Amino acid sequence: MSYLTTLKRAQAGEITPEMKQVAENEGISSEIICREIAAGRIVICKNRHRHHCNPAGIGKYLKTKVNANIGTSGDHADIKVELEKLKVAVEAGADAVMDLSIGGPIKEIRQAILKESSVPVGTVPIYQTAIDTIQKGKKSIVEMSADDIFTTIQEQGEEGVDFVTVHCGITRQAMARINNQGRLLDVVSRGGSFLATWMAYNNKENPLYEYFDRLLEIAVEHELVLSLGDGLRPGCIADATDRGQIQELIMLGELTQRANDFGVQVMIEGPGHIPIHQVKENVLLEKSLCNGAPFYVLGPVVTDIAPGYDHITSAIGGALAASVGVDFLCYVTPSEHLRLPTVEDVRTGVIATRIAAHAGDISKGVVSAIDQDNRMAQFRKDLDWEGQINTAIDPDTARRLYESSTSRNGTTCTMCGDYCAIKLIKTQGKNTK
Amino acid sequence: MSYLTTLKRAQAGEITPEMKQVAENEGISSEIICREIAAGRIVICKNRHRHHCNPAGIGKYLKTKVNANIGTSGDHADIKVELEKLKVAVEAGADAVMDLSIGGPIKEIRQAILKESSVPVGTVPIYQTAIDTIQKGKKSIVEMSADDIFTTIQEQGEEGVDFVTVHCGITRQAMARINNQGRLLDVVSRGGSFLATWMAYNNKENPLYEYFDRLLEIAVEHELVLSLGDGLRPGCIADATDRGQIQELIMLGELTQRANDFGVQVMIEGPGHIPIHQVKENVLLEKSLCNGAPFYVLGPVVTDIAPGYDHITSAIGGALAASVGVDFLCYVTPSEHLRLPTVEDVRTGVIATRIAAHAGDISKGVVSAIDQDNRMAQFRKDLDWEGQINTAIDPDTARRLYESSTSRNGTTCTMCGDYCAIKLIKTQGKNTK
Repeated sequence: MSYLTTLKRAQAGEITPEMKQVAENEGISSEIICREIAAGRIVICKNRHRHHCNPAGIGKYLKTKVNANIGTSGDHADIKVELEKLKVAVEAGADAVMDLSIGGPIKEIRQAILKESSVPVGTVPIYQTAIDTIQKGKKSIVEMSADDIFTTIQEQGEEGVDFVTVHCGITRQAMARINNQGRLLDVVSRGGSFLATWMAYNNKENPLYEYFDRLLEIAVEHELVLSLGDGLRPGCIADATDRGQIQELIMLGELTQRANDFGVQVMIEGPGHIPIHQVKENVLLEKSLCNGAPFYVLGPVVTDIAPGYDHITSAIGGALAASVGVDFLCYVTPSEHLRLPTVEDVRTGVIATRIAAHAGDISKGVVSAIDQDNRMAQFRKDLDWEGQINTAIDPDTARRLYESSTSRNGTTCTMCGDYCAIKLIKTQGKNTK
Repeated sequence: MSYLTTLKRAQAGEITPEMKQVAENEGISSEIICREIAAGRIVICKNRHRHHCNPAGIGKYLKTKVNANIGTSGDHADIKVELEKLKVAVEAGADAVMDLSIGGPIKEIRQAILKESSVPVGTVPIYQTAIDTIQKGKKSIVEMSADDIFTTIQEQGEEGVDFVTVHCGITRQAMARINNQGRLLDVVSRGGSFLATWMAYNNKENPLYEYFDRLLEIAVEHELVLSLGDGLRPGCIADATDRGQIQELIMLGELTQRANDFGVQVMIEGPGHIPIHQVKENVLLEKSLCNGAPFYVLGPVVTDIAPGYDHITSAIGGALAASVGVDFLCYVTPSEHLRLPTVEDVRTGVIATRIAAHAGDISKGVVSAIDQDNRMAQFRKDLDWEGQINTAIDPDTARRLYESSTSRNGTTCTMCGDYCAIKLIKTQGKNTK
């Protein structure tokens, strides 16, 4: 293991080409990037075997990033559709994608996505392990072995996967906390449920926890970023911030420290379903318990009752979370809780999540985000519609709506026409001229 | 003026039929409703001449309410379309509508809406005054008289309008504060711009401020709720929480006290464009400066750069605002900043805003809101899809998405199929059975 990881180099004060690239993307000095990586507060997702991927910096002082989950299921497994989702996600502005395929030839799909993607690609390797187990003729995923799990991660590292979700914090102790307190919705994480049922059936500790060093060795070898999964995240508002969730987070904090000491970069995954008044507290807890490691949240959705609109419930939670320090938002689409997302859902999900990230960045004080809003305001003052459309987060949609309905006066939109406040103020009330 | 207003009755400890109705709608005792009305912290919107309208209670301890703005513009003035918007808004769950028509036969449109609407109807009377001024052959709205303004309000009170937006706080002093600090986007409120240009042209104080008692007498006569408008609300993130905005709010606080002493119910209108990290502070300021009067916000949108998606930017701001005490959310549609909303925009806007109100209510501790989420969670645990769909905020959309893509196994959705976490946990990992 002579390879020196990004984290080890940062700890030695070495500024790598990837750090320079991230610094340039963000308009921040390479020295700050290097210092924050060394401290574990920024990660750069880029497998050492991948070359055509723009490295994504995630963490403190950086713009809030957006991930789009794509991938097949048993009911819909079409590689072409998934590659189209990848294309649409990146065009809409996703900073990373995760391939969560569980249907069809998932190895082939993953490799195609890795080949096509210009942004970092993440996976949840235990999906592959589970499916391989069933395909080998076993009756249930609980028959997978610890070796099977690590072999898959090793293979995916070799393939060039940039970050992996590993649910290392689902320990017996954390499960005991859940069973003690009781939950309305038990375990809702897919990978989490694989491990929880495996642990219960085999009466053993989670291999990803028990043999964590084995994981670290694989991560070092391929420059894999570990995204420590929240397998015990709450699946409904009633279960938010319960003892099981926070017990897992504490364990993830300890593992973060071990990983960082080993030279491995870590992100922490977070919920999930969280009411508005607990979002800030969840972010504070993660930062405090996990040494300021980048926080990667799924949503959070702030109510359970809006299936069909979970891109909105998660934009609410994600924006609030980003504004108080979350670094990486996993999108949620309108199809969440209802079906596998379509290509159009992917687009809608990425845009909604980019809005949340941007709104959060304004509150974080990201200068480029604030500048963009100020440009839009100036274009509004000037009634410059081309300027407004080109400054919009989704110029095509803004143009479609604006051009569908043009005002007779040729200068305002059709909401107010001649009674446009901006026009009136400019002309000192002479609205009929 | 022998008529005793709701507020006067509440101050005398009298529980009116409207208070009982609101108490029943909310599952709260009539005594609390009466006490909070007396203190100015709850209002009931119902003109004394209207009989077929379900009175909406707005304020402390109550569910967060949603308003939908409808109405024509000079470019699109079709009474049938506006009545369709009314129907769609109420069906989608709006608690009130405002008719903001400024094009076509606006008196006729308003009267038709008042006749059809089962929810309280609000207006901005100065629109009628301005349009009458132009129709009388004047060259500009700045030629309207103070009498014209009050005559219109009197007429609309007689017609049965339940609440009126009156921009009483745009005073010379507040305008001086704006001019002193400077603004990127000046005045963006339509009614506010009418008054600001009138004041500048005529070199006079705002008549709605100068002759506020005249307004109070009209309000008492018809049981009109005054919605004190924020004519100086910020129109972009850069202008948020500036001295002009807060100066106006201070003046509205003083006027609230005068109105309450006179027996007139008051709400305070609020912004507008506010970054996430200033939302809570804006709510605290309103509650503190205006004696806890109900706060009615437009959005707030939390970034300027998402035209085409301002139902999402305002759902973010509205949810956060509601969670910290805002009482009434005015919807914003996807067409905001681009065109007059369509019927479909109205539906989308109401649903997005109801999601925000509901998410806020969970944090406010509204028991019925929390119960609804818990029912949804239980239906998810039971994989009961009919239950989930019927508990959704928009069952039609949830059903359409779910039924568009059915899983071969007949029990889960197509996101995970046989690898559904909920199913796996139930069957202890036996996913292939």
